[in-house]
Order: sequence, then C-alpha cells, then structure tokens
Amino acid sequence: MNMQSKTNGAVAERLTRARALMSREGIDAWLVPSADPHLSEYLPGYWQGRQWLSGFQGSVGTLIVTQAFAGLWVDSRYWEQATKELAGSGIELVKLQPGQSGPLEWLAEQAKQDSVIAVDGAVMAVAASRTLASNLYARGARLRTDLDPLIEIWRDRPALPAQAVYEHKAPQATVLRPEKLQRLRSAMSERGADWHFIATLDDIAWLFNVRGADVSYNPVFLSFALLGPDSVSLFVASDKVDSALRQTLASEGITLREYTQIGAALREVPVQARLLVDPARVTCGLLDYLDSEVTLVEGLNPTTLFKSQKTEADAQHIRQAMEQDGAALCEFFAWLDTALGHEPVSELTIDEKLSAARQRRPGYISPSFATIAGFNGNGAMPHYRATEAEHAQIEGDGLLLIDSGGQYLGGTTDITRMVPIGQPTAEQKRDCTRVLKGVIALSKAQFPRGILSPLLDAIARAPMWADGVNYGHGTGHGVGYFLNVHEGPQVIAYQAPATPQTAMLPGMITSIEPGTYRPGQWGVRIENLVINREAGKTEFGEFLSFETLTLCPIDTRCLEVGLLTQEERIWLNGYHHEVRTRLSPLLGGTELAWLEERTEEV
Amino acid sequence: MNMQSKTNGAVAERLTRARALMSREGIDAWLVPSADPHLSEYLPGYWQGRQWLSGFQGSVGTLIVTQAFAGLWVDSRYWEQATKELAGSGIELVKLQPGQSGPLEWLAEQAKQDSVIAVDGAVMAVAASRTLASNLYARGARLRTDLDPLIEIWRDRPALPAQAVYEHKAPQATVLRPEKLQRLRSAMSERGADWHFIATLDDIAWLFNVRGADVSYNPVFLSFALLGPDSVSLFVASDKVDSALRQTLASEGITLREYTQIGAALREVPVQARLLVDPARVTCGLLDYLDSEVTLVEGLNPTTLFKSQKTEADAQHIRQAMEQDGAALCEFFAWLDTALGHEPVSELTIDEKLSAARQRRPGYISPSFATIAGFNGNGAMPHYRATEAEHAQIEGDGLLLIDSGGQYLGGTTDITRMVPIGQPTAEQKRDCTRVLKGVIALSKAQFPRGILSPLLDAIARAPMWADGVNYGHGTGHGVGYFLNVHEGPQVIAYQAPATPQTAMLPGMITSIEPGTYRPGQWGVRIENLVINREAGKTEFGEFLSFETLTLCPIDTRCLEVGLLTQEERIWLNGYHHEVRTRLSPLLGGTELAWLEERTEEV
Repeated sequence: MNMQSKTNGAVAERLTRARALMSREGIDAWLVPSADPHLSEYLPGYWQGRQWLSGFQGSVGTLIVTQAFAGLWVDSRYWEQATKELAGSGIELVKLQPGQSGPLEWLAEQAKQDSVIAVDGAVMAVAASRTLASNLYARGARLRTDLDPLIEIWRDRPALPAQAVYEHKAPQATVLRPEKLQRLRSAMSERGADWHFIATLDDIAWLFNVRGADVSYNPVFLSFALLGPDSVSLFVASDKVDSALRQTLASEGITLREYTQIGAALREVPVQARLLVDPARVTCGLLDYLDSEVTLVEGLNPTTLFKSQKTEADAQHIRQAMEQDGAALCEFFAWLDTALGHEPVSELTIDEKLSAARQRRPGYISPSFATIAGFNGNGAMPHYRATEAEHAQIEGDGLLLIDSGGQYLGGTTDITRMVPIGQPTAEQKRDCTRVLKGVIALSKAQFPRGILSPLLDAIARAPMWADGVNYGHGTGHGVGYFLNVHEGPQVIAYQAPATPQTAMLPGMITSIEPGTYRPGQWGVRIENLVINREAGKTEFGEFLSFETLTLCPIDTRCLEVGLLTQEERIWLNGYHHEVRTRLSPLLGGTELAWLEERTEEV
Repeated sequence: MNMQSKTNGAVAERLTRARALMSREGIDAWLVPSADPHLSEYLPGYWQGRQWLSGFQGSVGTLIVTQAFAGLWVDSRYWEQATKELAGSGIELVKLQPGQSGPLEWLAEQAKQDSVIAVDGAVMAVAASRTLASNLYARGARLRTDLDPLIEIWRDRPALPAQAVYEHKAPQATVLRPEKLQRLRSAMSERGADWHFIATLDDIAWLFNVRGADVSYNPVFLSFALLGPDSVSLFVASDKVDSALRQTLASEGITLREYTQIGAALREVPVQARLLVDPARVTCGLLDYLDSEVTLVEGLNPTTLFKSQKTEADAQHIRQAMEQDGAALCEFFAWLDTALGHEPVSELTIDEKLSAARQRRPGYISPSFATIAGFNGNGAMPHYRATEAEHAQIEGDGLLLIDSGGQYLGGTTDITRMVPIGQPTAEQKRDCTRVLKGVIALSKAQFPRGILSPLLDAIARAPMWADGVNYGHGTGHGVGYFLNVHEGPQVIAYQAPATPQTAMLPGMITSIEPGTYRPGQWGVRIENLVINREAGKTEFGEFLSFETLTLCPIDTRCLEVGLLTQEERIWLNGYHHEVRTRLSPLLGGTELAWLEERTEEV
C-alpha cells in the first residue's frame, strides 16, 4: 500500500463523516472552496479544509459533496496532479475549462426544489454568495451559510498561525499611518460612508504600516480593520503584537482588538451607519453579523487603489531593492554558467542557490513566491514547481526558464529569465526572440493616463499574434511594495474584464511577462516589472509611460538577433547599458565579468 | 428680424403649447430624445419632433421641458451650432461632456416626490426606460410613457415617408430568404424562444433581402418583423410594396401587414410565448403592447450578428464595388489636382464632383453618408459638413480632408483621404505620417478569432500615443453590405465597453480610421475598410487577419516618408501596387496617368 492509497482511505472516511453531518443537518450539498475569511491567495493551514477533505494538495480547487457524489473542480494546471491525488478517494475530477460553467453554476443547475446547499459563509465572498443564492432561489432551493462542518469533523485541524507582526518603518515606509488614515477617511466621505470594514490582508498591512508572516510569501498577518466615525480598530491576535508597537498604535488612536472579536464588533455597528465594503473582498459570513438596517456602500476598498500607486519615495526604495535583487541574480547566473557541465545541477539546486544569493542581500526578507525553475518540457507548465519527488536535471540541450522573486523591506521583485542550456534550437531561439519583442513593444509604450489596463495587452501580443502564437495567462499583474506579488486593481490581460477600476495611474507597478508554451517541449517567458511614470501633458491629454524597474541581463544567447528590428536592438542595448551601469558597483570578480559579457551590445 | 429670430419666436410658442398640455396632463417634465421607434441613426421627418420643438437642427440632442425650464443636452460636436440655433428660444444649451452625467441622470436627480416625467415610449429603448424608471422610482417619482404630446401640438407634422421598397436580388443578394429565416429560427430555438420581434430597420432589410429609401443614406424602409412558431410577418405600408414582390414574399410564407398594425399584432402574441427581443434595440412603447405574461428572452438580435458576417460571395461583390468606387475616386482626385489653381474649388464643389463621379459607376445607388470635405480648420471637426451658408474655398496651403462613401448594390463604401493643398507644413506631414502608421499597424495585425474588438484599438493608437497624440472618436465601426455604413456588433474603440457581443468573427467589415485634430488649424484622418479573414489555425488557436478592401491611393505628398519604417514602406508600396493593378483596367487618359503617379513606390 503506497502513501497515496493510505491518504485516500482517510479521505473516504472523512467524506463518510461529512455525509453523516450533512444528513443530520438536512444539507443536500456542501460546497468547500479554497478560501479563507480574507479571500487570500495563500491560505493558512487552518483554512485548508478543502485539501484535507479531498486529499488534493493543489492550491486552487472547489469540492462539492452530496450523499451520492463528490466532485473536485480544478483548472488545467492541476489536472495531472489531481488525477493522481484523487485516485481511490471516490472523488471525481471535474475539469474546469475557460468559458465553461463552474462548480457554482453546476450547483444551481442540479439544485432540486426545497434542497439546501451549504457553504461556510466565513470563506465565501458576498458577491459570489449573492449570485449563488439567487440562482438557487430561482430553482426553489436555499443557500445556508451559517455552518462550518469542518469544526466538527476535522479533529486535528491546525491552529491559526501565530507569527509576530512588526512595523514597516521609515525610511522604507514612506507615508505615515495618520496620513494614510486621513486619506482613507476622505475617500470614505466622498462615497458617503462613515464606517468602513476591511478584510483583505494586504490592504490592512499597507494601511497600518505593519507586516507579518502568517502565510507563505506574502508578508501579511491575519487581521481585520474596522473604521467608525471616531474610531480605528485593528483586529489581530494580541500575542502577535509587542508592547512597543502596541503603544505606538495606541498613541495614534488605533485600538487593538482580538482577531476573533470581529464578529462581535460588526454586530455593534449602529443601524444608522453607512458602511463601505467591497463585496468581492469581504465574506458573507462576516457581513451577516451586521444589523440588517445598516446601509452598505459598496465599492473597491480605497486602500486597494492607494497602495497600487507607489509614491516617488517608494519608487526610490524599489530601485535600490532592484539593484540588490539584480546583483543577487548576477551572482546566481554567473555560478550557474560555471557549474553547468562541471557539477550536477537540478531544478531544485536552482531554487536553493538563487534563494541563498538573495539571502545575502541587505533588506531581503523572503521569497515573494515559490521559485519556478523549469527545464525544457517543465518550462511549458506556467505554474510548474519542482519537487523532491519529481524534478529534472539540467543537462543536454534546451531552455531553462527561471521565474523567481524576493520580498525586500524596500520592495517586492518578480523576474523571469531564460537560460540557454547546451545549444538551443533555432525554433527555441525564435520563440525567445518573439517573446522579447512583446516585452519591448509594451515596455516602450506610452499611453493615455487612465486607460483601462486590459486594453494595453494587444501591444505586447501583436508581435506574437503576427506569427500565430499566443499564451493563456495575462501579460501583467500588479505588484505590491513589500507586499503581495499579485495585487490589483490594474491587470494587463485581454482576457480580463476592462472595468473602470483597472485604469492605469501613476506609480502603479505591473509585470510585463509574455510567454510561449509548447507542451512537453519547452516554455519561454521573459518578465520585467515596470512602474507607471507621468510622461507629460499634450493638447491631446495626459500620458503615462513605463520605467523598467527590473535589472538583470536578458540572455542574448537565447535570441536570434537578426529577427530584432533596429528599434528593438536599440531598446535591448539601452536596457543592458542601464543594467551594467547600475549593477557593476555591487559586483566583483567572476560575477562582474559575467555581467559585462552578458550585457554586451548586439 | 432675421430668419433665426423668426424660428425662435415659433419655438417659444411651441413650448407654450407644450407646457399647457403638460399642465393639463399633470406632467412635470417632458423628455424629447432624438429617436424613432426603430432607434435609427437617421430619422424620418415625422420623428424629428425634437428638432421642431427646440429649433436645433443637429441630428443628436435631448430636450427636457418643465414649466420653469427648457434645456437641450448636446455633445461638443454641436455646441457652436446649438448656441446659434437656440439663441432667443428660451432653451438653455447644456453641454454634454464625456464621462459626465447626461439628461436622464439629470431628470432622476431633479425629480421630486410624486412628480411625473413623461417620454413618448414609442421612441425610448426598453433598456434606457428601465434604468430611468427605476431611478425615478427611487426618488418617489414616476415615468409615464403612454403619451406622444407631439400628436396634439405639432400641427404641420410631416407624414411618414412613403418610398417604394424593392428586392435586393441575386447575384448581389447571396443568401436566399428561406435560408436566412431558417438560420434565425435555429438561433431562436437555441435561446429557448419561439417568438421574435425585430424593430431595427437594417436587421429587417437584411433578413428579407429588401431595401428602401425612407431615410437618408441608409437603404432601409420603415418596418417591423414578428416571427411566431409558424408565422413570419413583415409590417410595412402596403402601398410601398409592388405586387410582384408581394407575391414572391407570400409564396415563401411571409405575411405582409400594415406598418401601423404592429401594436395590434404584439397584443395578439399568446401568453405562453417566449419572445426574443433586444432591449437596447426595441422601444418600451412597443413592448407595452405585449401581455405582461409573455416571457421575454433578452439578447442581441441574431440577425445583427448574422449580417455582420459577410459571406465569401458577399466579399466578392464588395471587392468589385470597391473597384468601382476606387475608379470614381481616381476620376475625382485627378480632376481636383487639375482644377486646383485653375478654377475656384470650394468644399461644396467637392461633394458635387465626387457624387457625380460615383453616379457614373455601375451598381451605384446613393451616398452612404453626407460627404465631409474640410479644408484646414474645418477638417479639425470630425463631423464637419459644409453648407451653402458656410464653407471654405480650397486655396493657399494646407490639408484637405475628404471623407465620403457610396451605397452600391454589391456593398457599402466609406473612405477618408488627405489631399495636400499648395505646400503642407512639416508638422502637417508628420501628423499625416503618424496617422498612416496607425492605419498600417492595425491593417497588418493578426489576432485571435473571437477577440473582443475594442481590445485591438491600442495597436492602431500605439504609434500615435508614442508622440503624445490621441483622438476622441473610435478607430473603427462595422459597415453593412449595401446597408448602414454604421453597424455593430464589433467596434474598434478603446472607449467602448468590451462586451462579449463585440467579438471579432470572420467576414465582419470594419473601418480603420485613426485621426489627429488640431482645432482651428487642420485635421487628419485616413480611412480604409477591412474584412476579417481566417488566417489559419495553429497549436495556439485560430487567428484572423484583415484584408484591406478600400482601393484608392494614399497621397504620399502629405507624408514625411523618412519617418516610415522599412516595414511600413513595404506595406504602403504593396497597397499601392494592388490599387494600381485593380483600378488601371477601369481608367484611362489623365485619370490613369494620375493613378500611376500617385501609386509610385516610395
């Protein structure tokens, strides 16, 4: 009996317990999403109930359990993994396809008159629960959100994380809390709100200039924030906050309350309150604590927009962090070039060596996400992660894709580079060159201030579409300032809805990362971070342009330089000149020699 | 007393009569939009009540009358004209600004508890009336849509147009009515509808292969169509249809009914019907005839999508029509080059000569819109129209913009070209060159089948944005097949919402017409029509590309050729080669010589 079978025996037993509870409670179907009360990307163990109940360890998937059926909806990234991990569990893999209906639609279609569908309201966004409830209602069924069956059936459920929090201080924190709070209050009053509830962890970390380590990669901490007309309350486990920070916050009129008291606090919001909340970023379980008379003012959290617009002082720190990150990358790449062919190098070695190089840099805190090092066919999986059990040796010929990033006190980095192994083929070089054309086209773009960011994607993709090439992921995501490596509201992706919230404004940091993926063969992605800079006002309006922040050579050995236009060559040489100028002072010896060679003009 | 003052005395008297009626009927505000029961772009005189009541002759504007106030909301195109025409009328000009609230929002904001706001439901889209009614309801006010006050107060109201209709026959009509009706029925049943009501004139003209001349420029006729499970009814004034066509339609099971009988017919739709309607393209006054039990299935009219996708046989006819149109344009431009400096040429002469040249071409029916011939400052007004009273002579130095089009039995054309007058300045040439770069960038583009068309706009604008230049109108509108020069559902405009309806599909014809407008100085626009062609399927999906349909030289004397890239020069020379090859056989003498000179390589 192998490990997987053991787990799946356990899964079957868990499902039996779940069904007994459902039967007792009169629940016909139980929906278990991958979510927590903060609707975060990375979940603490306490909220990984879907993993525990299904045995599927991937980060995104939705489980539905009825008496006669159990199904797990996962997207194509996870089909292979889910097939393996669900084997023998009695749970059916349901392949989620873009543009096709998902688990919530399935529930609504299947629902019978008078049936009861349950989901833990603590982990379901208000917006999603409203849609589901109204679709169920149309079928005569009912959504129940007041029960978390896991409390009863998950006996060894992990505790909530308890990492200490710490202040993000000047000079890297460039705007003081009182100023941020004042700006937030102005935004609230512009929308006619006197109360505001925030559940998103990065909004809270930004607003209070506090960071933590409760989840992987994102320097955030479990918390809620509630602002009233004369009060600011931060809900966080008291043993996470030291007395110095406690005193500092108190002196600024910020009340600390226990994380678990948020329900009680929401229950106390007065009936005449006009409470600003983002229905996509707050769960229905929490809002249910409110008196039904409280008026909701719905809209994007103002902090989401504020934190996306980095100040010029933020930008200065980010430039420095990028220099440190670039120097770490040069150290690593110089080592890699020497090591290849002389010592065994695997996809796992790369993560170790790269993390070690970053670790030596001042201001470095942690990786900003799990390093993706994918050789040839593995590089064709955009979300690939090498494991002890399955990883490739870097040997022979081909392309190595490395996507990694770091959290620094003065910024968050995210970079992808291609490394030639042995002799890449002409087709591999063409793919790299075409992807670089996409990067250059968008990096050089100037555009009207306020343009909806999804509308810019075609500029990056045009050179690739011209050859009948495309890729399924977005071209660019927002990036935080020593915060989440994925943030909104802007998004450069033609697949994303171009809502007014996605407007491009000065100071926003976004990735530019086109790619080409040939399943089973190789994958190409080149990624820089750019910041929106004011580019002047003409009689036709205000314009923005991108400043490239990321500093690291783009390996020209992977390119077919003859396919670049004169303008593209000028951009590439200019970029490499900037990289060399700014990284040279931080490097010496073989690393400096490597930098100089890799930034030679083409 | 001049003419305008006389009109405005009449306007004041009309408002007095309107207010007396409002007072009698208990109406607090009366909304008079520029619309008819078909929500058409061009309105028959009978539906030009807003013009009659306000004295403002522009085609788009919304009048609101209360006892104490009368205001006309118009966009920036018409501010100058409206200021003149409203002088002394007692009607206030309200400047409509993009992104700011309009007359409907104003009504909702001003509405008092228990007040009654009236609009003739016959001319207001269901979607718009629903929004207005619900906003008024929120203020305790009520929308009344069952009254057309113009019937009583407009004593010399024009009759409905009575132009004969005629069949659009093979070979130019390439799909037979039974096939179109069958396809429509399939689409209805896919959406679960057994009835369908169409009020849009171009949808009806397309579906029945019939054309008319009830309004300017669009070869359509006043009509409605109603499909039941076993019936197809076309509502059109009986004296417009000759007996041959009447017999043909009858033999295909199509029932002709009087245009004015549509209300009665809608009243007869059975309560169990599931009726497909487009709430944006049907007025609330008409839908109010339905029994409230009838189920509405709401969505785009399937015919709107069908007619946007021209068949390959359509495309062949369009290519021929473009050759005829191009030959007419060459005749005209050759004459213009000779005439300039030798005889007086005004903006009005241009319209006359150009229309005369088209008139001589086989298959030509009428202009497809009012010719825009704007010299220097006049060219800076995108919707300029020269009049007897105000127009410029073409003399001195500068740029002449000519935007015109024709209706042919085998297609609809729309083209804009720039003509150098005397010696254009370096800045004028740079503007023309930059606009051409936009045309070329988009014309060469290949893109995924099904991409939402607004997302392509950035490709045309990128070269202009790079220089801090932009323009307020869209880059491309759909064009009909011997039908309206403006049709949907696709639209290449970053300002337009990227809804799923706007997806690019094979056979769609769209304009590519970037521009640059320097108010009071000059305007530049270059416009070609392109058709979506399948460009093959790769491992990354299906792609489309544009075939340029328009055939007419782009005057290189307006260009700074040194600013074009090698690739752009190749495109321009390739285009001119195609133009010369296809138009030469249709021309001779000085016109052929002109064509050869104007298509020389750069």
